Amino acid sequence: MHKDINNHFNKGDFLDNPIGSEIYNLAEKLFPICRSLTGDGVRQTLNIMREECPSLTLFEVPTGTAAFDWVVPKEWEIRDAYIKDLEGSTVLSFKDSNLHVVGYSAPFNRELSREELLKMIHTLPDKPTLIPYVTSYYKEYSGFCMAFNDVQNLNKDRYRAVIESELKDGSLTYGEILIPGKSEKEIFFSSNICHPTLANNELSGPCLSLYLAKRAIAQSRSSRYSYRFIFIPETIGSLVYMSRNLEKMKENIIAGFVVTCAGDNRSYSYLSSRRGDTLADRAAKNTLNFTHQDYKSYPYLERGSDERQYCAPGIDLPVCSLMRSKYGEYPEYHTSADNMELISPEGFEGSYALYCKVIDSLENNRTYKAVFLGEPQLGKRDLYPTVSYSGSAAGVRDMMNLLAYADGEVDLIGISDIIKVPMDELSRLAIKLESAGLLERK
Amino acid sequence: MHKDINNHFNKGDFLDNPIGSEIYNLAEKLFPICRSLTGDGVRQTLNIMREECPSLTLFEVPTGTAAFDWVVPKEWEIRDAYIKDLEGSTVLSFKDSNLHVVGYSAPFNRELSREELLKMIHTLPDKPTLIPYVTSYYKEYSGFCMAFNDVQNLNKDRYRAVIESELKDGSLTYGEILIPGKSEKEIFFSSNICHPTLANNELSGPCLSLYLAKRAIAQSRSSRYSYRFIFIPETIGSLVYMSRNLEKMKENIIAGFVVTCAGDNRSYSYLSSRRGDTLADRAAKNTLNFTHQDYKSYPYLERGSDERQYCAPGIDLPVCSLMRSKYGEYPEYHTSADNMELISPEGFEGSYALYCKVIDSLENNRTYKAVFLGEPQLGKRDLYPTVSYSGSAAGVRDMMNLLAYADGEVDLIGISDIIKVPMDELSRLAIKLESAGLLERK
Amino acid sequence: MHKDINNHFNKGDFLDNPIGSEIYNLAEKLFPICRSLTGDGVRQTLNIMREECPSLTLFEVPTGTAAFDWVVPKEWEIRDAYIKDLEGSTVLSFKDSNLHVVGYSAPFNRELSREELLKMIHTLPDKPTLIPYVTSYYKEYSGFCMAFNDVQNLNKDRYRAVIESELKDGSLTYGEILIPGKSEKEIFFSSNICHPTLANNELSGPCLSLYLAKRAIAQSRSSRYSYRFIFIPETIGSLVYMSRNLEKMKENIIAGFVVTCAGDNRSYSYLSSRRGDTLADRAAKNTLNFTHQDYKSYPYLERGSDERQYCAPGIDLPVCSLMRSKYGEYPEYHTSADNMELISPEGFEGSYALYCKVIDSLENNRTYKAVFLGEPQLGKRDLYPTVSYSGSAAGVRDMMNLLAYADGEVDLIGISDIIKVPMDELSRLAIKLESAGLLERK
Repeated sequence: MHKDINNHFNKGDFLDNPIGSEIYNLAEKLFPICRSLTGDGVRQTLNIMREECPSLTLFEVPTGTAAFDWVVPKEWEIRDAYIKDLEGSTVLSFKDSNLHVVGYSAPFNRELSREELLKMIHTLPDKPTLIPYVTSYYKEYSGFCMAFNDVQNLNKDRYRAVIESELKDGSLTYGEILIPGKSEKEIFFSSNICHPTLANNELSGPCLSLYLAKRAIAQSRSSRYSYRFIFIPETIGSLVYMSRNLEKMKENIIAGFVVTCAGDNRSYSYLSSRRGDTLADRAAKNTLNFTHQDYKSYPYLERGSDERQYCAPGIDLPVCSLMRSKYGEYPEYHTSADNMELISPEGFEGSYALYCKVIDSLENNRTYKAVFLGEPQLGKRDLYPTVSYSGSAAGVRDMMNLLAYADGEVDLIGISDIIKVPMDELSRLAIKLESAGLLERK
Repeated sequence: MHKDINNHFNKGDFLDNPIGSEIYNLAEKLFPICRSLTGDGVRQTLNIMREECPSLTLFEVPTGTAAFDWVVPKEWEIRDAYIKDLEGSTVLSFKDSNLHVVGYSAPFNRELSREELLKMIHTLPDKPTLIPYVTSYYKEYSGFCMAFNDVQNLNKDRYRAVIESELKDGSLTYGEILIPGKSEKEIFFSSNICHPTLANNELSGPCLSLYLAKRAIAQSRSSRYSYRFIFIPETIGSLVYMSRNLEKMKENIIAGFVVTCAGDNRSYSYLSSRRGDTLADRAAKNTLNFTHQDYKSYPYLERGSDERQYCAPGIDLPVCSLMRSKYGEYPEYHTSADNMELISPEGFEGSYALYCKVIDSLENNRTYKAVFLGEPQLGKRDLYPTVSYSGSAAGVRDMMNLLAYADGEVDLIGISDIIKVPMDELSRLAIKLESAGLLERK
Repeated sequence: MHKDINNHFNKGDFLDNPIGSEIYNLAEKLFPICRSLTGDGVRQTLNIMREECPSLTLFEVPTGTAAFDWVVPKEWEIRDAYIKDLEGSTVLSFKDSNLHVVGYSAPFNRELSREELLKMIHTLPDKPTLIPYVTSYYKEYSGFCMAFNDVQNLNKDRYRAVIESELKDGSLTYGEILIPGKSEKEIFFSSNICHPTLANNELSGPCLSLYLAKRAIAQSRSSRYSYRFIFIPETIGSLVYMSRNLEKMKENIIAGFVVTCAGDNRSYSYLSSRRGDTLADRAAKNTLNFTHQDYKSYPYLERGSDERQYCAPGIDLPVCSLMRSKYGEYPEYHTSADNMELISPEGFEGSYALYCKVIDSLENNRTYKAVFLGEPQLGKRDLYPTVSYSGSAAGVRDMMNLLAYADGEVDLIGISDIIKVPMDELSRLAIKLESAGLLERK
């Protein structure tokens, strides 16, 4: 399938985007698998990810286990599905696209009139060449999805529709990577592994997440914080996870992110937590203001992924979401066009770089206090140009501004917001001034 | 006088505005009476109102009674007033308009030169056909008011000016309707019955107020709050009322409104309380934002009625004002053109509807808390479309948003402000979710 | 030198600006002196100022004395400096302008090649006719400053460069005027006497300051607050002063101002304290909003004078800065063009008037509480026009607004901000209402 990629992207894309390409290659391996809330698609996906990152641990939670207001559903197994006319000609096959079957469809095998069949088929009349993505998780239902144009070719009177699926007691599978740092306080990342053959929403999320985990592992010896990455089905997965871990999460998570829609190469988007001013929000907005000033900012009212659970009343974790094009806002969303052509090495490279910057700014975020009353004398410490004339102050302005705001109350992210110096530069400055004995950590 | 109305308004106005018409008819009955701070005009007015609403109780407070820095003034009685030339031709008569006499004018009977007379006559040179409304409550004075054009016709040398009035010990009269609800906490309405033949400012206020009281009586069995309506002369009336009831008012009033200028059919206006963020302000602004987004908002600096007393330092009741065209802001204000043609059944119908919406939103305003951690499962409760695809979320968005913000801290009005769902809809949703066991009242 | 002035300004300038002219005349006397951080230039300056205001006390702090992170530097004495060609022709002489020598230059006497000499000479290529102002306080260095155009004329191969200076143990000199008022709480003014022949930045500051001190002395018997004026070298001076007085300063200073760039007649400028909302900031902004609505407002990020020390973390005094054209923002800044032509009697007159207004508004700033519940009756106290008609309320609006906001919490400056009445008028009104028994001081 690498050939396929080479059709979409120039070789340069891969050379220029080394990490983005690795993430893209992982997505490509996982793309064809038919994932759902539960079942072997999820397990297969997590097992392939575990090959990339052996720290990934899998958990199985049995059907029927309660999670707040919810219960782990039956496991869904699908072997095949098709629609044939009575002469045996196939008009739709699950093997062509697993989007053709409504997710969690109950077993079905009947001869139907054309009219009866049409009632089972979901289409997108305004995007007539695309297959929609439809699920029916919590009510028994059987259905198909087709391109609107293809439905127009169904001109026989009767058809046979078959879904060889099974809904059975089993378990919900999720994965977790925990990378301990110096502190038990942790930075949290959540992504979904429940979508079938859809690339940006949602395969891009867990793929990027896994590479962020690999980076955290590589840097774990020097990390200040612990890192937790979870790979869960949407909604039920976060509820199951929280029903088992909420107390610890509330105690330890200082900032968290829902990682989704991370692979296309269009805008950058930020979706607020409910409170809007948590450390996660502050780090995300501070970074974007320096790196992608034209980023799109969405209020919590526009939420749509697991931040709905993490920020719910009584839970209130500091979790926001950083994306490229936000779910629901791009035309290919939840259709067969959300495929490997929509995402790109460059798209992943950008998301990866953004997340790394946000993570580093959290690692570097400390609260400093000036050691001396009044401005310190930079000159005697070789921190200041000794010959001053009109204009020379500009060169040391950042250092002086940092010292002027380091009052032991505002953290570096807050100072960065005020003095408009990006966190990487600011934290280097802070360490320099700390070494010079001018700042001390609170 | 009903003919007169039929000249101003089409029959359709009355059919389309059933409550507005009733209020208008009451205003019409009361319009000719010469009201003032005190005296028989006020009593006559309140007695006619009591015929409409027998719950109205009248109170008499004797001249000389102290009210904070004030004292109940003498009662003013006026029998007649006129200006004649020495041949006995009448050039001005109180019988034509009670605006012709400065309110609270002391008795007067003298022959005067033209020059002397002119010094006693108030006019509006920029509105030369209108008689101004002038009073002199707290200093003895005698004077007349005329249309500027009519003054130009005073071409005799000498005149006789007569005011047959009396200022005598008596009492200040006010009315009150108290409608107990389930709680002693109450919603408070204050309107003025001290203006003479002026329609929008001020007769519209007590007329609308009386019909709001009739509605509260009709709904009293199911009302959560008590309702109090007072009908008082401006300034001295509110001070007298508060000097007798302040402690209870501070304890019980959760929201209050100065009801004035409610009958014309032009803009809607809101005048802030001093604090600006009381429950009364919040309910008023929330309602107007959904029903009349183009409403005019006036700061407390533009105040001019009894909110001056209710919001004074040390009193600080949660009282704002909802009006159609605000006093002082429309050209007919305090002139003979503020008459029955300025107000209309439609004008009253709109004010009545607005006040009802605000009242209902206060009745419905509660603070809810989500019962479950995380989003509840709407599907198993038949609250959610079970087949989900791109876009379907829109239909349940309001329900999910309510659940997402129901944190036991923000009340429904606050949530309505955030999620942009009007209070009637939102409170229906809240009750539905409460019945489904998903929300609980705080 | 008075002739010189008469060249710059019409006689009318002096007649129209009586105080501004006196301040200008003082600046003129002091202008030629070669001031620096320390040394006889400073002493000479302060002695001349003491002739104007005998309350000025001088302090000497020995070289080597510690001040927080700093140490009082050696005293700089300069007798002469020049550059000559080997034929003895002078190409630069300290006697022509003391800006020709880099401030604090170490002794120097060498024959140099043209190339070597050029490395010692600072110019402003974009302002080729002006001599820059350059210092090297805290690292030993010797250098010259010249107009860029004049450097082009240096066409000899070799030159002799001589700086007859001395860096020796001595002391830092500063001046202070303390004017006790009824309270030990004080208003603080800081200005710099360390700049050589530069007029707006910095001579205008101490000259204006001295005249504000003379006014405070004249009014001291009726002053509510104490007044402190200090005349210090920039940075090291404020640090030295605070290292000796910080505890008392923190206890007593209610508002302080860095007085600088006060003599040109262009804009008015305000530079915020670090907190931005101290009493000093509030008084300054309130006054400017009434007197010079087009003033320029600079955030603390644009700071550049001793507010850097006064607002530093852990010190946090309520100090902001009021200027005409801010340092660094006008083209003549730190060049030989910042001379007596740049500043003017009119410029000083405006600054003086502005500071007086700010001072008076601090003196007049009190917190009042209404004595009566509800509005008081102005009529019986002859505070209200007794015949009321449409519009008459305007005349007493300010009085009523003051009463409406006098809740014992908001001070007069706060009320002035809300009701848009300038402090002088508002405080007169408050005293009138206090005398009438309607307001009481908190």
